[in-house]
Amino acid sequence: MIIAVIGESNARPHIAELAEEVGRELARRRIDLVCGGMDGVMEAACRGAKSEGGRTIAILAGSDPQQANDYVDFPILTGLGYARNVIVVKTGMAVIAVGGAYGTLSEIGHALAEDIPVIGLETWTLTRSGEPPDAAITIASDPTDAVEKAVRAAEDRLRAFERSRLSSG
Amino acid sequence: MIIAVIGESNARPHIAELAEEVGRELARRRIDLVCGGMDGVMEAACRGAKSEGGRTIAILAGSDPQQANDYVDFPILTGLGYARNVIVVKTGMAVIAVGGAYGTLSEIGHALAEDIPVIGLETWTLTRSGEPPDAAITIASDPTDAVEKAVRAAEDRLRAFERSRLSSG
Amino acid sequence: MIIAVIGESNARPHIAELAEEVGRELARRRIDLVCGGMDGVMEAACRGAKSEGGRTIAILAGSDPQQANDYVDFPILTGLGYARNVIVVKTGMAVIAVGGAYGTLSEIGHALAEDIPVIGLETWTLTRSGEPPDAAITIASDPTDAVEKAVRAAEDRLRAFERSRLSSG
Amino acid sequence: MIIAVIGESNARPHIAELAEEVGRELARRRIDLVCGGMDGVMEAACRGAKSEGGRTIAILAGSDPQQANDYVDFPILTGLGYARNVIVVKTGMAVIAVGGAYGTLSEIGHALAEDIPVIGLETWTLTRSGEPPDAAITIASDPTDAVEKAVRAAEDRLRAFERSRLSSG
Repeated sequence: MIIAVIGESNARPHIAELAEEVGRELARRRIDLVCGGMDGVMEAACRGAKSEGGRTIAILAGSDPQQANDYVDFPILTGLGYARNVIVVKTGMAVIAVGGAYGTLSEIGHALAEDIPVIGLETWTLTRSGEPPDAAITIASDPTDAVEKAVRAAEDRLRAFERSRLSSG
Repeated sequence: MIIAVIGESNARPHIAELAEEVGRELARRRIDLVCGGMDGVMEAACRGAKSEGGRTIAILAGSDPQQANDYVDFPILTGLGYARNVIVVKTGMAVIAVGGAYGTLSEIGHALAEDIPVIGLETWTLTRSGEPPDAAITIASDPTDAVEKAVRAAEDRLRAFERSRLSSG
Repeated sequence: MIIAVIGESNARPHIAELAEEVGRELARRRIDLVCGGMDGVMEAACRGAKSEGGRTIAILAGSDPQQANDYVDFPILTGLGYARNVIVVKTGMAVIAVGGAYGTLSEIGHALAEDIPVIGLETWTLTRSGEPPDAAITIASDPTDAVEKAVRAAEDRLRAFERSRLSSG
Repeated sequence: MIIAVIGESNARPHIAELAEEVGRELARRRIDLVCGGMDGVMEAACRGAKSEGGRTIAILAGSDPQQANDYVDFPILTGLGYARNVIVVKTGMAVIAVGGAYGTLSEIGHALAEDIPVIGLETWTLTRSGEPPDAAITIASDPTDAVEKAVRAAEDRLRAFERSRLSSG
């Protein structure tokens, strides 16, 4: 199972710590991590995953494998620029957002538009004009809670893929 | 000059009215409109533009030109699914967001990540954890104000492209 | 109706002449032209189209509208690099290949893989190992013949889209 | 190091055998394999790689991880349709083409356009109008020869990335 970790590339220190612990916790459960492969939250999550023997995939915006941070096992070279954000969230069976800038916001939007579950740790709050804050992002209390919620949501999605395959086959 | 109009495909009536007036106002100023080509805000904006003799471009997710709404002059077929959202906002020299669901949110994120100006009419409010609401979206009071603010921001961007071309050439 | 013109950006003179005449002939028939927006065949075809009052769309690899050649009406900014080639051929209801380098070859491959008709003027000949040359590219004798063959193939495709819409609706 | 294997999804038996041996040979050298993740050459190459303990990455056109063949370790979900072909060849430091239909042709075109080395086993021969057959595809005599040639070319590219990083850093 693959889970996506998204977040700011210019990470504030406490956000990077949260991301690193998310990476460790995913690896302890033998879950593969996919991210955008750059700095900040992405690097911290990959470092955490590798420290526990996990496997890390980077969906890179450019064409050079050495743009990936030092903790990436599989650099995927898209050359698509920011459009690669869509691939990051689609490849995860669930998405964990840690902190976040505007690129993260685009990833949250893509994920929610395609019914991919998003678990948030100190990330964006979204409010549509004249309504209470949107509840589509599942708020986690800490990295372990985020991973638990993400795994449960990802297992539900994998079962739905399985059912739709059985019914169509 | 091309300006992007983004917003919900399942548009509430007053949101569709705002979008149609945005389309009319763009066409009166001889500005071309780009959008995702589907229903709701996109269709209303195209209808408004055509009613004033404007020109409309649709960046479609699929492969069939007849998926575009009836007011599209130029259907661009990407086959990219939601990743086409990136092209919608990049093609506009500025972006006007009217209402909005999660796809719109992804477009706002992409635009802000690439410093493309976003003007909002009853759209998302964004708040990063523990901070006051983000001020990156310029709020407009009505469709005419939105178009005026978008045109001014777009002219600034075109001048910046021009300057960077002169200095590099 | 939109037809795509593809070909080498570093065009040999007689190839550029063929492309310019293709552009003129498309415009005389009130057909819009889509291409990759750069130099060589793309520029020559756009120049021909504009000389006859046609309309030209460029699917650009980058993010700057001023990268388009001087004869482009609608610069579509993808930021996708070479992946934008797929959009060029999909947006055309048929494709006319004039001369061609490797980028053109990728476009021919994408078109044929999706059953988009390809008409060739002095372009690649393709041979699968141990077989006679592939006949999937329709060879044209001159620019007028190329446009005639492309229009006929494009009309067939539009009718097929229409039929599939009627039968599904 | 990652190397891409491309080829027809409707593989003739002797082509599938070549692809399976390519997969085995890559895995014996501890090289990771990337492909489009579907049937035919892609499945045979993945099966070969897994039989020797290799690791396999699939760049999928759709959104369902279960569309991948049974020998894929890492399904990357792009939702981009055929545009995903670009990512397959960019992710490989070199590309091995085995047999091939039109999708393969588009991948060969993309690779050559970006100077990514292509090694061919019973694949397309390309001839530009009025010229002798193009020599850009390196012809291999058998799967072991293909892998050897691909590894050598890939090592050259990695060194070039390294050099450009050192000189820019």
